[in-house]
Amino acid sequence: MEKRDLLYEGKAKRVYTTDDKDIVMVSYKDDATAFNGIKKGTIHDKGKVNNEVSNKVMMYLEENAIPTHLVKQINERETLVKKVEIIPLEVIVRNKVAGSLAKKLGLEEGTILKRPILEFCYKKDELGDPFINVDHILAAELATEEEIEIIQKMARKINELLVGYFKNINIDLIDFKIEFGRTPDGQVILADEISPDTCRYWDATTGEKLDKDRFRRDMGNVEEAYLEVYNRIFA
Amino acid sequence: MEKRDLLYEGKAKRVYTTDDKDIVMVSYKDDATAFNGIKKGTIHDKGKVNNEVSNKVMMYLEENAIPTHLVKQINERETLVKKVEIIPLEVIVRNKVAGSLAKKLGLEEGTILKRPILEFCYKKDELGDPFINVDHILAAELATEEEIEIIQKMARKINELLVGYFKNINIDLIDFKIEFGRTPDGQVILADEISPDTCRYWDATTGEKLDKDRFRRDMGNVEEAYLEVYNRIFA
Repeated sequence: MEKRDLLYEGKAKRVYTTDDKDIVMVSYKDDATAFNGIKKGTIHDKGKVNNEVSNKVMMYLEENAIPTHLVKQINERETLVKKVEIIPLEVIVRNKVAGSLAKKLGLEEGTILKRPILEFCYKKDELGDPFINVDHILAAELATEEEIEIIQKMARKINELLVGYFKNINIDLIDFKIEFGRTPDGQVILADEISPDTCRYWDATTGEKLDKDRFRRDMGNVEEAYLEVYNRIFA
Repeated sequence: MEKRDLLYEGKAKRVYTTDDKDIVMVSYKDDATAFNGIKKGTIHDKGKVNNEVSNKVMMYLEENAIPTHLVKQINERETLVKKVEIIPLEVIVRNKVAGSLAKKLGLEEGTILKRPILEFCYKKDELGDPFINVDHILAAELATEEEIEIIQKMARKINELLVGYFKNINIDLIDFKIEFGRTPDGQVILADEISPDTCRYWDATTGEKLDKDRFRRDMGNVEEAYLEVYNRIFA
């Protein structure tokens, strides 16, 4: 299948049309941003790691009855996915306290949450992707009540699956952000990516951070952390 | 019943013990603060207006099957209320877009919400009273699942009652903040106050603001607005 026109360029990916109107090609970049685009940089080979890691994880989810946008990987950086209308929500699931939640509730990073926390942010750069609740989603008509229920249920199930998946490679899944899309026939499926850009991974033994926090917080060894996740998944 | 020791001094009220261990006396001050205490001032006779307005409104709610902390007004500024353990949540109900919600969702002030929006904030000055969701409430153990359900149901019912009440005196109830408390036997009841400090009231004909936004936004005629609400309620 041929790559055609650039449809959309995001912070970390480009999306192209293909010969098939229902399928687009995602091309992962090495560009990294944080704090709503204020911090910018490049992480060598991040595009390759994220493309392959995300595809591998999505395949695992598909095997476990989670519908995803994944069609087929084309090369190291490019993947064909189902064209969907992205639901403008960042869905965050948290197993331990980290990042903005530590500040919000005044809790220490690493505190175990007895029950995973689910958060919605309104995906809108101009507004700074604000944290919202279900009433806001309905008021702004970002999703229907039925879609929200599907998303909540799917997000919790995905969390259960991913916690186990990463535990097997000695990684503690602290939290992650996912996005969902609507197919032309109205089905809600997992879209976007699941990678060290969108998850917090801590080594389960040492607690070492193996994710984008190394970039956000200038911790060094950013490339190495991304590669470490890659190597553990593909070992 | 005698006023005894100062139990607690808040931004707008003092609370005293009484001869009865289950009853405290609330004394309303004229002090006004905004933006989590950054802006400070005095609104002449605010204490009297808020005490009498809040009591009148709570009596109306009691008549309509909402349990409140109200026991008995003592004088212009002081009221006996049931001693409760305050649940550390600010419960906000919104009928039209205003204030922080306008900024959050990028909507114009005054936009009608088809379905009222309910928000929870964690009542904790050091953290800036952050906006939270039900999962956060459960994780931080601020209230039980059962209490949250009672609060949500009661807040929506209170909103329905108050919209009608204020409509009768030509006031459009834009939004309001309420707090709940636990009695010694575990009942959840409405506590704190319902006044121009804690509500947005707009004149239903002219749209003129008759609430604390006049103080927050340096609009002038603050005392007059509070008195106008008082006069309409007691006309």
